[in-house]
Amino acid sequence: MSASEFRISLLITHYSLLITHYSLLITHYSLLITHYSLLITHYSLLPILCYYITMQIEVNAESKSYPIVLERGSINNVAQFVPSGKNALIVYDKNVPTTAVNTICEQFPNSKLVKITGGEVTKSIDNYAELLQKCMDAKLTRSDYIIAVGGGTVGDLAGFTAATYMRGIHLIHVPTTILSAVDSSIGGKTGINFGGTKNVVGAFYQPDAVIIDLDVTKTLSERQVSNGLAEALKAGLIYDETLFELFEQDDYLAHIDEIVAQAIYVKKAIVEQDEREADLRQILNFGHTIGHGIEAHFGKYLHGEAIAEGMMYFIKSKELGERVEKITRKMNLPKIKLSPNDIDPIYELIVRDKKANADYINVVEVEKPGHAYICQVKKADINEMLKWGSA
Amino acid sequence: MSASEFRISLLITHYSLLITHYSLLITHYSLLITHYSLLITHYSLLPILCYYITMQIEVNAESKSYPIVLERGSINNVAQFVPSGKNALIVYDKNVPTTAVNTICEQFPNSKLVKITGGEVTKSIDNYAELLQKCMDAKLTRSDYIIAVGGGTVGDLAGFTAATYMRGIHLIHVPTTILSAVDSSIGGKTGINFGGTKNVVGAFYQPDAVIIDLDVTKTLSERQVSNGLAEALKAGLIYDETLFELFEQDDYLAHIDEIVAQAIYVKKAIVEQDEREADLRQILNFGHTIGHGIEAHFGKYLHGEAIAEGMMYFIKSKELGERVEKITRKMNLPKIKLSPNDIDPIYELIVRDKKANADYINVVEVEKPGHAYICQVKKADINEMLKWGSA
Repeated sequence: MSASEFRISLLITHYSLLITHYSLLITHYSLLITHYSLLITHYSLLPILCYYITMQIEVNAESKSYPIVLERGSINNVAQFVPSGKNALIVYDKNVPTTAVNTICEQFPNSKLVKITGGEVTKSIDNYAELLQKCMDAKLTRSDYIIAVGGGTVGDLAGFTAATYMRGIHLIHVPTTILSAVDSSIGGKTGINFGGTKNVVGAFYQPDAVIIDLDVTKTLSERQVSNGLAEALKAGLIYDETLFELFEQDDYLAHIDEIVAQAIYVKKAIVEQDEREADLRQILNFGHTIGHGIEAHFGKYLHGEAIAEGMMYFIKSKELGERVEKITRKMNLPKIKLSPNDIDPIYELIVRDKKANADYINVVEVEKPGHAYICQVKKADINEMLKWGSA
Repeated sequence: MSASEFRISLLITHYSLLITHYSLLITHYSLLITHYSLLITHYSLLPILCYYITMQIEVNAESKSYPIVLERGSINNVAQFVPSGKNALIVYDKNVPTTAVNTICEQFPNSKLVKITGGEVTKSIDNYAELLQKCMDAKLTRSDYIIAVGGGTVGDLAGFTAATYMRGIHLIHVPTTILSAVDSSIGGKTGINFGGTKNVVGAFYQPDAVIIDLDVTKTLSERQVSNGLAEALKAGLIYDETLFELFEQDDYLAHIDEIVAQAIYVKKAIVEQDEREADLRQILNFGHTIGHGIEAHFGKYLHGEAIAEGMMYFIKSKELGERVEKITRKMNLPKIKLSPNDIDPIYELIVRDKKANADYINVVEVEKPGHAYICQVKKADINEMLKWGSA
């Protein structure tokens, strides 16, 4: 090979390597593009993969029918449930994200705002009187609206005010916690605490609409989410096996819309059959007999945490007990162990409000997921049960 | 005639006179007997001549059905409307005759008693809270009873307490004034005053029974009787011509049972069609628009007196106006003449609670007895009407 021939073959090799290099580069970038477009596809599909659910169901209570809307973004549409020209008093919990409060306010230009500090102490007769005064200051008439934005406290207090101001004005619930979305906002129970007893004063009063936007619950702590989901777990245990089974999935939190939807269906079904808690509705108290006692005695557990523990006492099958235990551990609900010193005060809290002459109290038991029954237990047996809880 | 003959004829005359005397005596005594037996017949027929009426009618309100018992002596039978074993809190007005309160108490050996001082100031949120506390002290449960014995004040306050304690316990009204018998005890309105506005807080809550014993109203003053009958007169004007015509009889007071019965029928008929005052029930407010203004402004007139005067503004026929005027004079209802200085304050009281942006207010008019219609009147026209009242 001559020198010039060698130079040419080197040049050819060099260029073909260069071509290979650039084509590899192109392949690399097109792979990168594919990767990012897959990523985009993934994120845009995420809401669907997370099983977002949109539903509007009608609750047909004996006294009234009204819709429950479960939809991401639905707080933008609160005004569509209020005829134009009506006044609104928006009562909101201070913990509701400001953007959510603003989103609602913007829909009611002439509305008045009342900020409430949440928690059970807020549900006092003094705060009730104060809220009545706000209604009068806002010159609300019988055709006007109270919009309750927050958790159970706001719903109960603003709901009772709506039930009794002018013997009842319109009411819209916008629950912003999981607990109120699946439980307290549905069914028409409103009330305040009095003389040291929870919810002893109140009214059965159905709202005009319940609007649930789970995007608003994004800012809740994991503990608050589990607190609310405990009531949904209860709903599954007493009335809906498929709801219960959702909790057994590893990615149960991805199913949160579905869980909330099904829990609402359970509550709706029960309330429609028995609006005023004459019989069937009592099964919603599953876990609450001892749960309320635990909640009041310790003071440090959230409602859902206490009733999750309270349910364990009334699950009548070992196998089901283990399944529920596994779920509550996964949900990081605390295992509440009683010390011997806790038993008497909790027992006293449980029997305190019962009839003095009654030897039995009604409790709810579950043996098979989705099936609850009401039975009577001797007061003394409750004491025995509590000892089991400290064993 | 011999002396002995003369003696004999004298003797005969003497005896025949004696016979005449005795037969006259017999006639006299038999007349006396007839007289007394007629008297006895008269008195035994008196209840019938006074048109005593016994009736039990069923009110079929949308939310509940319950009996109204109108019967002399019926306070002896209150317990028959309460299942045995239930606790009762008896709330009574201090003006109710002691014998009547005792008659009811004796039927409920374990009952607790609460004495109320009547009058509108009693219907405060503080007294409401106090009565709730009494319910708690008496350990009333949801299946127990409040028995409200008295006039409108007791019925409204005890009724609202029953409506909201434990979200509603059982309630029996025993109205002891004509006003509460024909009006406030029927229809389920309960409530308290708040922030200076009458009945602005309350609930629609139907009792389990209304027991009316007109014997208990015997101790009422003539003024209190007329006060109550004014609402019955209103009932006749808006809905029942024959009831209205009863008032035109000279002995209308002998017909009081019949008047009360027919007034109850009117209220029952209206409330059944419109429990929550959506439309028809508004006709019960006949006379109340200006009447409430007069009542609040002067402070010295009873409710019935004020609304009787208030009706005059909305009777749309001169001839009917004269008939009503004649009745109200006979009932000794006061003619309330407004001075020019009264007009503005009464006008302010009337429009105060209306919507700020509403130019019209709903009023009830009557042209023909038994027929009322609702119409809208410009606020300014109310002012003109008041001037007519001072003319």
